[in-house]
Amino acid sequence: MAGKPILYSYFRSSCSWRVRIALAVKGIDYEYVAVNLLKSEQLGEKYRSVNLTSQVPSMEVDGMVLTQSNAIIEYLDETREGPSLLPKDPKKRFLARQLSQIISCGIQPLQNLSVLRYLGDERKVEWAQKVITGGFEAFETLVDQSSGKYCVGDEVTMADLCLVPQVYNANRFKVDMSKYPAISRINAALLELDAFKVAHPSKQPDCPEDLR
Amino acid sequence: MAGKPILYSYFRSSCSWRVRIALAVKGIDYEYVAVNLLKSEQLGEKYRSVNLTSQVPSMEVDGMVLTQSNAIIEYLDETREGPSLLPKDPKKRFLARQLSQIISCGIQPLQNLSVLRYLGDERKVEWAQKVITGGFEAFETLVDQSSGKYCVGDEVTMADLCLVPQVYNANRFKVDMSKYPAISRINAALLELDAFKVAHPSKQPDCPEDLR
Repeated sequence: MAGKPILYSYFRSSCSWRVRIALAVKGIDYEYVAVNLLKSEQLGEKYRSVNLTSQVPSMEVDGMVLTQSNAIIEYLDETREGPSLLPKDPKKRFLARQLSQIISCGIQPLQNLSVLRYLGDERKVEWAQKVITGGFEAFETLVDQSSGKYCVGDEVTMADLCLVPQVYNANRFKVDMSKYPAISRINAALLELDAFKVAHPSKQPDCPEDLR
Repeated sequence: MAGKPILYSYFRSSCSWRVRIALAVKGIDYEYVAVNLLKSEQLGEKYRSVNLTSQVPSMEVDGMVLTQSNAIIEYLDETREGPSLLPKDPKKRFLARQLSQIISCGIQPLQNLSVLRYLGDERKVEWAQKVITGGFEAFETLVDQSSGKYCVGDEVTMADLCLVPQVYNANRFKVDMSKYPAISRINAALLELDAFKVAHPSKQPDCPEDLR
């Protein structure tokens, strides 16, 4: 399959955003197909003909349809040229995966759209704040020990790809970020990088004009 | 650090269980330290002196304290002898990670103890069933294509380590498992393996007598 990968993405989905950063860091050209989660397009026939699991993001590449953002990122990392998204040293690889999972298993799933809808408008902000601050306390403690310029030393890793979208969500839910100085410093450094700039929600074709 | 790894575990925690299976498959001897989540021992001073993030499981090994079960599993896999928990082929490795993450990011975090306590007794069963059936529909579709005897072909992978504890939880919440024939078949085959038998909650030192 020699065609360009196709990424099915929603501009503000943090899992889609992680994969967009991976593609940009590794310099992989791809086609962007927008799936509007607010209109539940992921549940429609058109998207389900690509991906029966109705999850975003998904990627058509190498004759397969991939879902689960961190699994996609590791697949791209193992099969494509470009800067590695995990360190070579097993202990540092562990640290990058541990930090990634604090976000991808411990925070993001608990504050995604379907959970917030279930809780209802009254409770959703309180809940999102509780989940994010709980996870960020753990993340801050660990990243304070592992970080250089970025989460693990001075090279961008999968942990950084998870962190930036999560900080964006923390800001949307008005989490007090002054309690997390290491996270804030690393996030600011990452936002300076070209790969993080082009992958930002505000730069995606499906971002509404008023959020650009 | 030449000492035995120490696993801080709760007998019924599905994330602890995953790691216990990994240790058993790879034949790694370890010390078991029980942390009682129902008594909130993970929040106590004693446990926090080991692991400030208050998460279970954690493992002391190679001079580090590790958290996040799937990151621990990949670390053990990369640094220890014994059967590999991920296939060599990148596409199959992807499949094993994708299935693992459907559970570890998409199901388990949403039906763990802290979420259920937040929702309250009235809503918790309905919520847990919704989360588990949503995730199992995706898992069933994918595993039907990737499986042989186990989730990905005929070798045990990380996906199998995630699946067995999740099926146990599904049964606790009375999910109708007849809708998931592939999952049910694979789960039954896995429960026959010695590594899965010794790692079962009922075989742990902190399992109460009446659940043995």
